[in-house]
Amino acid sequence: MDLKEIGKKAKDASFLLGKMGSGEKNKGLLAAAEEMLKGQDEILKANANDVKKAKEKGMAQGLVDRLLLTPDRILGIVEGMRQVAGLEDPVGEVISMKKRPNGLVVGQKRVPMGVIGMIYEARPNVTADAFALCFKTGNAVILRGGSDALESNEAIVACIRRGLSSCGIPEDAVFLLSDTSRETAREFMRMNQYLDVLIPRGGAGLIKSVVENSTVPVIETGTGNCHIYVDETADLAMAADILFNAKTQRIGVCNACESVLVHRAVADTFLPLMKKRLDEKQVEIRADEASRAVVPEFKEATEEDWGREYLDYILSCKIVDSVDEAIAHINTYNTGHSEAIVTSDYGNAQKFLDEVDAAAVYVNASTRFTDGFEFGFGAEIGISTQKLHARGPMGLLALTSTKYIIYGNGQIRE
Amino acid sequence: MDLKEIGKKAKDASFLLGKMGSGEKNKGLLAAAEEMLKGQDEILKANANDVKKAKEKGMAQGLVDRLLLTPDRILGIVEGMRQVAGLEDPVGEVISMKKRPNGLVVGQKRVPMGVIGMIYEARPNVTADAFALCFKTGNAVILRGGSDALESNEAIVACIRRGLSSCGIPEDAVFLLSDTSRETAREFMRMNQYLDVLIPRGGAGLIKSVVENSTVPVIETGTGNCHIYVDETADLAMAADILFNAKTQRIGVCNACESVLVHRAVADTFLPLMKKRLDEKQVEIRADEASRAVVPEFKEATEEDWGREYLDYILSCKIVDSVDEAIAHINTYNTGHSEAIVTSDYGNAQKFLDEVDAAAVYVNASTRFTDGFEFGFGAEIGISTQKLHARGPMGLLALTSTKYIIYGNGQIRE
Repeated sequence: MDLKEIGKKAKDASFLLGKMGSGEKNKGLLAAAEEMLKGQDEILKANANDVKKAKEKGMAQGLVDRLLLTPDRILGIVEGMRQVAGLEDPVGEVISMKKRPNGLVVGQKRVPMGVIGMIYEARPNVTADAFALCFKTGNAVILRGGSDALESNEAIVACIRRGLSSCGIPEDAVFLLSDTSRETAREFMRMNQYLDVLIPRGGAGLIKSVVENSTVPVIETGTGNCHIYVDETADLAMAADILFNAKTQRIGVCNACESVLVHRAVADTFLPLMKKRLDEKQVEIRADEASRAVVPEFKEATEEDWGREYLDYILSCKIVDSVDEAIAHINTYNTGHSEAIVTSDYGNAQKFLDEVDAAAVYVNASTRFTDGFEFGFGAEIGISTQKLHARGPMGLLALTSTKYIIYGNGQIRE
Repeated sequence: MDLKEIGKKAKDASFLLGKMGSGEKNKGLLAAAEEMLKGQDEILKANANDVKKAKEKGMAQGLVDRLLLTPDRILGIVEGMRQVAGLEDPVGEVISMKKRPNGLVVGQKRVPMGVIGMIYEARPNVTADAFALCFKTGNAVILRGGSDALESNEAIVACIRRGLSSCGIPEDAVFLLSDTSRETAREFMRMNQYLDVLIPRGGAGLIKSVVENSTVPVIETGTGNCHIYVDETADLAMAADILFNAKTQRIGVCNACESVLVHRAVADTFLPLMKKRLDEKQVEIRADEASRAVVPEFKEATEEDWGREYLDYILSCKIVDSVDEAIAHINTYNTGHSEAIVTSDYGNAQKFLDEVDAAAVYVNASTRFTDGFEFGFGAEIGISTQKLHARGPMGLLALTSTKYIIYGNGQIRE
């Protein structure tokens, strides 16, 4: 089936999904989850093929691990789908409705986006996740996963389609692009006639490519060069705990801390304390000259380090003279993701919250909390680092749009 | 000054604007308006040069009229700026704030976008309008107006900058690109480092070019192929009034009606009635065969007519057998702008509101009401026909983003 045909079928399906009540959608979602369990052997077999080929190609161990499915992981994915069925459906809510002086009643209602395109890497769990969230919000979805997960994705989508079909719901609510060529990806990113929005999920390279090549509106999900600023008045033990958590609890994620800024007045005390904590995990610290004057064992940072998202046991470190300098540094080098201050000063806390330009700004907490589940959304399709439409963790609401509905009785414009 | 330098200066200014209270912003806005009045002669002189050159180039009369400024029109623009000063400032509002089980308090606050880029045609009023709305919401703005209005725009922006400066507000809150070449426009559309959002305002060609070439997130403001569907149970006199208003009250606007769909059961009565009304304004009707069987004077419509935004005294006309056929036709050919049904049937009214995919869907009213002022927003930066971020008329709220602010007391993630 060619891309246009897929687009057209998905668009047609989206009109039907848009009319469905939550009850019917939840039924479809649970049936799809059930079919994934029933089809577990089929999925594992397909996945074993993908993993075998990936290893033969010499794929890095970390990536192979993301690709690998096990019965436990499938159960986890199925559990996730069931949880989405249990979430409140935002579609149909009328957010506001007011009568105008001429008697027109103008309301604004939440509606599905229509057709959502997802472009992501070789992570088969995203296939089921993305389907569940898009479907719950009444959207059709076209998935373009990484080529290394193609067989796994095909098996998963086959199960989902069987589940939908068993409830009389159009299978075309979900499509997987089996052609994973770059040419097709480019054509996909320019399908404005059929796609209402495109969401890339993956590393910086993938996201950059989508932002640069797409003519369909994109929600940029993000890389995170996240900072922790240890203020003059910080509780230094708390600061060390927060930094240790944000840097080392999980290194490969976008809300992990990559850079620490320390107020000059507490540097002599804090830097050795910090080093001791981070040594437990052998974190390499790349520091400016002033920090190295305090702890000579720190490596030398280059200008390039201030902008790096390491996703590794590496941290950049810089001494600053004030909260203003910290804010200016962050607003220069950050990626608009998550930033934290550790302080006991009311004014500095408020200043940091007000002036730092990022999706999530923290006082006295780890940046690792930037997450749809931690924020209480019950789900997450990604974390937006752009300012348009959605910013920060995106739950079901981010997958909806609105429409004005206007009730008249013959009004014409003078 | 080169584009990057402008971008950097605008970004720096945006951080200062983001910190300003409404009082200070309103003061700046009123001072800018005052300077426009004081500089009226300067603006009129620059505009006279633009108009002279445009006429020499043979610009169409309608476009020359959009370019032309008069003392009255300048007063109108200044009045508009004063009205924006009187509107409520959405920035700083905390939309929600909840405590999580771990004690973290997660709030969501409205913040400015940052730097907004505007690309528009030779309409100098847009220069002052766009500045006022962006500035009121704490955004810096970089304006790229049509080359035919360059002198007028330069004079207007000079007045605005003087006004800001007189209040101690950074002039760099507003920039006008004096280089109106295509190459610079292309570079402008890819300035992701400095621009947070790009809003094109103008005809279909301009908007298409921005959507296709921009890597900065775009809010697509739209063309309107708007329909009116006259249902079997419509009050036909009301239908004729609404259609007459929507088609002829102002032909060159995006919320004007371009196509009428008529239920077969009322075609024999309605089509002659409609013809009589529209003849008052010599509206040309391009109809399908079934309609021409009723009124042979109608011209023959081609397939192409169903997708046309005429912006002229022309209307396409088609007979349908049901509300479902009307909805399917609209969802195939419309541009997602404004659509109306005229009916007395409860079920059909609800069905139309639910199933038509457009920014604004009307029952028994003219499509001409899709407008920020008519909807009660007090202002309008454009009408969005995309589903991301804002849909329909955009007031001040559409020029803001949000940011999560999180208050902790040492929380780390387990």
